[in-house]
Amino acid sequence: MKTLGVGLLGLGTVGAGVAEVLTRHADRVAARAGARLEIVRAAVHDPALFRGRGVPDDRLTDDAASVVAHPEVDLVVEVMGGLDPAHGLVRAALDAGRPVVSANKALLAERGQDLFEAAEARGVELRFEASVAGGIPVLLSLRDGLAANRIESIYGILNGTCNYILTRMEQERRPFDAVLAEAQASGYAEANPSTDIDGIDTAHKAVVLAALAYGKLVPFAELPIEGIRRITLADLDFARELGYAAKLLAVVRESADGEIEIRVEPTFVHGDHMLASVSGVFNAVKIHGDVVGDTFYHGRGAGREPTASAVVSDLIRVARGRLHPEIRPEPLHVAPGVLMPRDEWVSRAYLRVALLDQPGSLSKAAGTLGAHGISIASFIQKESTGNGFASVVFLTHPATERALGQALASLEALPEVDGPPVRIRIEDEPETEE
Amino acid sequence: MKTLGVGLLGLGTVGAGVAEVLTRHADRVAARAGARLEIVRAAVHDPALFRGRGVPDDRLTDDAASVVAHPEVDLVVEVMGGLDPAHGLVRAALDAGRPVVSANKALLAERGQDLFEAAEARGVELRFEASVAGGIPVLLSLRDGLAANRIESIYGILNGTCNYILTRMEQERRPFDAVLAEAQASGYAEANPSTDIDGIDTAHKAVVLAALAYGKLVPFAELPIEGIRRITLADLDFARELGYAAKLLAVVRESADGEIEIRVEPTFVHGDHMLASVSGVFNAVKIHGDVVGDTFYHGRGAGREPTASAVVSDLIRVARGRLHPEIRPEPLHVAPGVLMPRDEWVSRAYLRVALLDQPGSLSKAAGTLGAHGISIASFIQKESTGNGFASVVFLTHPATERALGQALASLEALPEVDGPPVRIRIEDEPETEE
Repeated sequence: MKTLGVGLLGLGTVGAGVAEVLTRHADRVAARAGARLEIVRAAVHDPALFRGRGVPDDRLTDDAASVVAHPEVDLVVEVMGGLDPAHGLVRAALDAGRPVVSANKALLAERGQDLFEAAEARGVELRFEASVAGGIPVLLSLRDGLAANRIESIYGILNGTCNYILTRMEQERRPFDAVLAEAQASGYAEANPSTDIDGIDTAHKAVVLAALAYGKLVPFAELPIEGIRRITLADLDFARELGYAAKLLAVVRESADGEIEIRVEPTFVHGDHMLASVSGVFNAVKIHGDVVGDTFYHGRGAGREPTASAVVSDLIRVARGRLHPEIRPEPLHVAPGVLMPRDEWVSRAYLRVALLDQPGSLSKAAGTLGAHGISIASFIQKESTGNGFASVVFLTHPATERALGQALASLEALPEVDGPPVRIRIEDEPETEE
Repeated sequence: MKTLGVGLLGLGTVGAGVAEVLTRHADRVAARAGARLEIVRAAVHDPALFRGRGVPDDRLTDDAASVVAHPEVDLVVEVMGGLDPAHGLVRAALDAGRPVVSANKALLAERGQDLFEAAEARGVELRFEASVAGGIPVLLSLRDGLAANRIESIYGILNGTCNYILTRMEQERRPFDAVLAEAQASGYAEANPSTDIDGIDTAHKAVVLAALAYGKLVPFAELPIEGIRRITLADLDFARELGYAAKLLAVVRESADGEIEIRVEPTFVHGDHMLASVSGVFNAVKIHGDVVGDTFYHGRGAGREPTASAVVSDLIRVARGRLHPEIRPEPLHVAPGVLMPRDEWVSRAYLRVALLDQPGSLSKAAGTLGAHGISIASFIQKESTGNGFASVVFLTHPATERALGQALASLEALPEVDGPPVRIRIEDEPETEE
């Protein structure tokens, strides 16, 4: 049986996992791929620090470009992360006609256009299942399994760190800062947690999902992104009381005129939906196709083994293509896309307002919402907290972001309202039964 | 752009759905497939009865063999169901080098060996995503998305009719017969419901899942299969009280020595697991891979549109292969498999026993279980029902089927026990968090 050489860019947690699975399942991989896969070179920043991670010492190098150019490297695996030098290395591999498997969502979301075009121009495969939802084969499902469908919407819980923190906050009734500190101590959150906590990682994944669903890559810099820092225990409690769960949710849709709607925000999802029951570090994606209806995918979204599962499964497929170089892979056909202006978004909202606890306050607040065309679906008023203000929660009917923004500004300007209202989006759609 | 001709075998609910999607999404399908797909012939048993279903009258024929042999037919879609004549027609298509997409789980489970071998011998694609879990791309995930994994286990809720009936029984507290009659009246169950209710449909799907996961096709006739007829409201209530949900579950595993373990039975699944929350006509599959861990898939498992989604998505893939006839498709490599003897199964059990309501009965029953090596994890005793017997429920620790069978026989022989004990398997494993 033929052997194909793998060049590994990066030998951190994921890279070591890939090396381990290629060894553990060498025969299985060979049977599926049609060739034995062998790591012939691995690029690390300091070879002395990466011994004993499943790659023989004499195959470690700090010269990443030499891995891509190595004559025995047939396939390139990029698991180093970051934009540079990953971008140049992946591009060089594609230009050299070497298929690439990447787990790098930042690279794909921010520099994908260049790479997709290079892959298409050269007829070389670029696969990246591991970049979204770890080991769950969501991209494969989008590309192939649901190919007959127009994708109506994608909802994703795509960052395990955020979901872990929200789950712990709710289960243990502890505030964000305390849970984050604990998550950092126990390794569930990075020392610098911003990429996860501020929604950037989720947004990268949302852009990749949109690219596969709609063939459009939106400019990442224009994305509205909000993380979970402002979620309070009070909002988690109200959510539960109202039948919702608070999640950091990515929403991806395409409008009738081809604009891409992407939102990454803390969002209330209806308790009847499976997304609401996704807890801890798990990821989940709901894809609605016009033919198939709702499909739902759940599993581990990050970590050494789930990511290695996706990388090696992609490698198997890429190897098969490499064995038949006369066949050009299916091109991705990803073109630049346009984001839907935020003002045009339509959705329901949860509004928590500190309202002066005296007659007439509630009707004045409700009237302010009504004056901006915001219709109230329900509300809850809690006892006064002692400072003369009471927490009032409104759930609105669907409204545009523009109208809601204006209504919130007017609300905040009322003398009966203390401070800016808290506003959290609701994605409502309960699971339907036939 | 090139046009590929599709020959449709069957124009019932699913066939009409396929025709409709190929029309509605003609451009989308062409872009994905690389060729336009056009139904050039459709076989029906009486052309006069199938007008107006999306295929022009002059393309309808009652001569199915002529569809497979038609010179303009490049791809064959088999959605007629049943073993014969479907088997001969699919075989003829494969022998003629024409790729086949089938939704026919009975055919694949009972005659698959012949078809897989013919497809491999001719290097022709045979795809059948629609045969299991409708529109949910579970087979694609097994074959490609999780290719790096050894599959440790597959748990499936694979029959919407059974799950609908169990859901309604529990929600409305009505007995099986009443809910079945209503399901038949409203179209959720067939006039002759045996294929669904008695677990045969689920078992067909379990065999297909095992074939893809392990490359082994077990003899369908030897499968132990049990449907949902014996599930009572009392058992549903005890299940809930104990933290479980009763589901018609397919379990697929491979033993260390290569025997395939397949069970289709009413089973208690732990309430913490997503499988427990699958309600109504939905299907769900949990696949545990040794690298990826648990992955979970949920969606509509049957019906015109979900099935058409899977058939047309398969057609797109098959068409791409047809455009590149120099490439042989990945063979399925399915060999005959051996079933694990039922006596060797190990699992936990729920036992409901009508026990004489007098001192010493319980310890005698418990002692009988213990004498056969069955260890009791917990039990519930309810008030006497007035006839001198009380319902006692035991949850056992894992035990072999052999030991449990002997223990049940001894239990039934006790004078303190009224009638045969009710026994329902427990698949316990709650979802784990990292």
